Amino acid sequence: MKLSEIARALGGELRGDGAVEIVDLAPIEDAPPGTLTFLADRRLAPRLAATRAAAVLLPPDAPEVALPSVRVAHPYLAFVAAVELLHPPPPRPAPCVDPSAVIAASARLGPGAVVGPHVVIGERTTIGRDATLHPNVTIYEDVAIGDGFTAHAGVVVREGTRIGDRVVLHAGAVIGSDGFGYLPLPEGIRKIPQIGTVVLEDEVEVGANATVDRAALGATVVGRGTKIDNLVIVGHGCRIGPECLLAAQVGLSGSSTLGARVLLGGQVGLAGHQTVGDRAQVAAKSGVHGDVPAGAVYGGYPATEVRVWRRASAALLRLPEALRRLRRVERALGLGVEPPSEE
Amino acid sequence: MKLSEIARALGGELRGDGAVEIVDLAPIEDAPPGTLTFLADRRLAPRLAATRAAAVLLPPDAPEVALPSVRVAHPYLAFVAAVELLHPPPPRPAPCVDPSAVIAASARLGPGAVVGPHVVIGERTTIGRDATLHPNVTIYEDVAIGDGFTAHAGVVVREGTRIGDRVVLHAGAVIGSDGFGYLPLPEGIRKIPQIGTVVLEDEVEVGANATVDRAALGATVVGRGTKIDNLVIVGHGCRIGPECLLAAQVGLSGSSTLGARVLLGGQVGLAGHQTVGDRAQVAAKSGVHGDVPAGAVYGGYPATEVRVWRRASAALLRLPEALRRLRRVERALGLGVEPPSEE
Amino acid sequence: MKLSEIARALGGELRGDGAVEIVDLAPIEDAPPGTLTFLADRRLAPRLAATRAAAVLLPPDAPEVALPSVRVAHPYLAFVAAVELLHPPPPRPAPCVDPSAVIAASARLGPGAVVGPHVVIGERTTIGRDATLHPNVTIYEDVAIGDGFTAHAGVVVREGTRIGDRVVLHAGAVIGSDGFGYLPLPEGIRKIPQIGTVVLEDEVEVGANATVDRAALGATVVGRGTKIDNLVIVGHGCRIGPECLLAAQVGLSGSSTLGARVLLGGQVGLAGHQTVGDRAQVAAKSGVHGDVPAGAVYGGYPATEVRVWRRASAALLRLPEALRRLRRVERALGLGVEPPSEE
Repeated sequence: MKLSEIARALGGELRGDGAVEIVDLAPIEDAPPGTLTFLADRRLAPRLAATRAAAVLLPPDAPEVALPSVRVAHPYLAFVAAVELLHPPPPRPAPCVDPSAVIAASARLGPGAVVGPHVVIGERTTIGRDATLHPNVTIYEDVAIGDGFTAHAGVVVREGTRIGDRVVLHAGAVIGSDGFGYLPLPEGIRKIPQIGTVVLEDEVEVGANATVDRAALGATVVGRGTKIDNLVIVGHGCRIGPECLLAAQVGLSGSSTLGARVLLGGQVGLAGHQTVGDRAQVAAKSGVHGDVPAGAVYGGYPATEVRVWRRASAALLRLPEALRRLRRVERALGLGVEPPSEE
Repeated sequence: MKLSEIARALGGELRGDGAVEIVDLAPIEDAPPGTLTFLADRRLAPRLAATRAAAVLLPPDAPEVALPSVRVAHPYLAFVAAVELLHPPPPRPAPCVDPSAVIAASARLGPGAVVGPHVVIGERTTIGRDATLHPNVTIYEDVAIGDGFTAHAGVVVREGTRIGDRVVLHAGAVIGSDGFGYLPLPEGIRKIPQIGTVVLEDEVEVGANATVDRAALGATVVGRGTKIDNLVIVGHGCRIGPECLLAAQVGLSGSSTLGARVLLGGQVGLAGHQTVGDRAQVAAKSGVHGDVPAGAVYGGYPATEVRVWRRASAALLRLPEALRRLRRVERALGLGVEPPSEE
Repeated sequence: MKLSEIARALGGELRGDGAVEIVDLAPIEDAPPGTLTFLADRRLAPRLAATRAAAVLLPPDAPEVALPSVRVAHPYLAFVAAVELLHPPPPRPAPCVDPSAVIAASARLGPGAVVGPHVVIGERTTIGRDATLHPNVTIYEDVAIGDGFTAHAGVVVREGTRIGDRVVLHAGAVIGSDGFGYLPLPEGIRKIPQIGTVVLEDEVEVGANATVDRAALGATVVGRGTKIDNLVIVGHGCRIGPECLLAAQVGLSGSSTLGARVLLGGQVGLAGHQTVGDRAQVAAKSGVHGDVPAGAVYGGYPATEVRVWRRASAALLRLPEALRRLRRVERALGLGVEPPSEE
């Protein structure tokens, strides 16, 4: 595809040779000859000197460059659009239910379904239009799923789960497993029945081998457009708002509440019954033991404001030396080492 | 169901209007009208003012409340019993082996088995009475399983595993995978054969997508009644006592030893060859690099007594300021900043 | 097997009674009578006093012991060889494709394949000689796999993945799932197409329920001989060198780069776009937020040189007391508690 055609499709302003042939797309640090790359930030423009890319997507205010370029308001977004232009998704296979699939008599599948081998669908489960169920997927009974559903191989959806439109479940994800609820009693551990359910709203995406547990009572809810990465656990009774991003291996204990557009870095853990406000962010690997206010950026273990945490953890590395200095000060003052009993 | 009937079934003392109709159960912060809720702790009684619940389970010594109430010794336990009363588990399906299941000729399944589509059972494997094997479960050869076994969809049990009675494996759990044992040699990495096995004793429950590795030699053992949450790894050769609770994403390195009734919070990691004593508790996200004494409550990274850790991590946030104060003290004393070489 | 025969097979020097019958192998702390054990380190020799083992593998320079012994250059390696001697792996089953497997017309399977029930292989996928596909494995279309491939039950390999020779995927592992790439825009979250692939080089091993994501563009690469433990995530676009060991629950964010022979302890997390140099090691549970130099040993959160981290985290426990001492010093000097505004 010629650069000029791409510029036109993206609605960008072409500068330089539009006849250059673009064979693929690549990030700037790794771009082979013939590729189109992008710079999200004008300050990164010096990197262009070393690239072998054939052309670049740039913000309107970036300095002139030697390479042919296309100026666009949001280069990363334009890059994504260009990826889709050069790599259109393969056409959906023709609707087809593999004969090895076992679909209960009372289940209902909308038109356009592609159902792979060894899929199992339970009694009274309903699935909307244009579902794609890859091989070895198991949907239990009494599940209600909207249109445009995709379940990759090995996905399990337990009984009673409710799923909106255009939801994507990656391979091995488990939706609706029992919450971890037990009463330790003197005579043994008593299981608390987990009779609630899970609601995944429209456009939710759940990563490979992630798990979303059913509520003990009521519902675990994942809000519209929220994306959950691999190996995350969403505990029973959590309520996650719309358009959150939960990176890999995040662990939400039972009854966590997340507002809208919350960002949780990888391996973040939330203790139970905490609330994270709208648009709050928590840095990777943090352990949250209290509420996080809306808009806050938290980090650390236990998590606090991330700049407080960063300063404290940098200071920590100077602590052994500071203890020696403190001792020197005490000696200079003729003070003993016994700490006073109270401050 | 009338509150008076519930009070009678629970053996509790009714106060107020027993004719009120209970339509469901709910936690106090979230209780819709018509529900029965509970208060585990008399100090929480003020919360009752705002609830919309129709009635409440209370400890005997709680103050009088406006709502109809049932006095019981252990309100949370009574609540669980009430959940089971109002939501009796659905009757087990009639015994049935789906024709798509592939059961080896030498495998033995006890009476009462419900075997879903696409289940696979290997040679010489024996399973007791009343097993429920959901779809797409794979049990390898030479596995011995007791009565009342439940395996949710996608569970994998590797060869030679031994499983007691009334064990529940949630969707995607893997029992008996190879331990992570390698010798890094100058000429490459040598795999250490993992020829041991896994023993899950009676009433063990393993969460969705959790994994319990086989021992290199001998057995990885999970004690009677121990409950393991989602996405946990139990490394090769671990020995876990009875009635432990391991929250989600816990990682036990090889040859960890846990006593009885140990509680591990979410994302806790244990270095290899450590011992955690009976009834010890480790706070969520802690990293344990040494033994934990029986009855201790540990936390932090590296983990120590949790109150020591809490005090230290609170103090850490004051450290940057303390370093400035220390410098001021040194200036007042005319001391330079070079740390003395030794304390 | 007689000890003398084992000594001969291992090429070791027998001392003591070679006629003793060895019934099995065991680690020293746990060795039942009749077993052969080993001591990797001569300093551990005192432990032999208490063992019930029948014989021991020792380094050449270990002191004389009461037990019959075999002297070998590398006792742990010899022990592994002895395990294989006494427990030879079972012969591979005869080649066989279960009739319930669904193999696409255009897929190609080399000779010697053992394909279990309910396996699914997609269009144009090619698999080399002597593959073992356990039940309920799903290989999507356009996958290329070398010789000697083993996939345990429930494994999923997504479209376009390229896998070398003698690769082992443990139960539930997912290779080639979508990377976690999204653009949060004011109007909603935009998915970045994940059109790259995954390359697993020869002799890679991936643990149970671990996930390796496909690159957004290009390839996620796991180098020759690298071993990945259970529940690890390798994010999109990571490049892992040869012969690395990644312990359980490690999380590599997108575009992490690991050199050769890197060791990552359990639950280690890497922020995105970091580089870990050849032979570097990172202690369990560390959070890496910057590059790790070749050969370095890092630890902590955020990770730094492990001995710096150890000293700092030990000092941290003395901080509350140090703050009291600092206050005492200030009092002695007549200084107030207000921190100076700047150091």
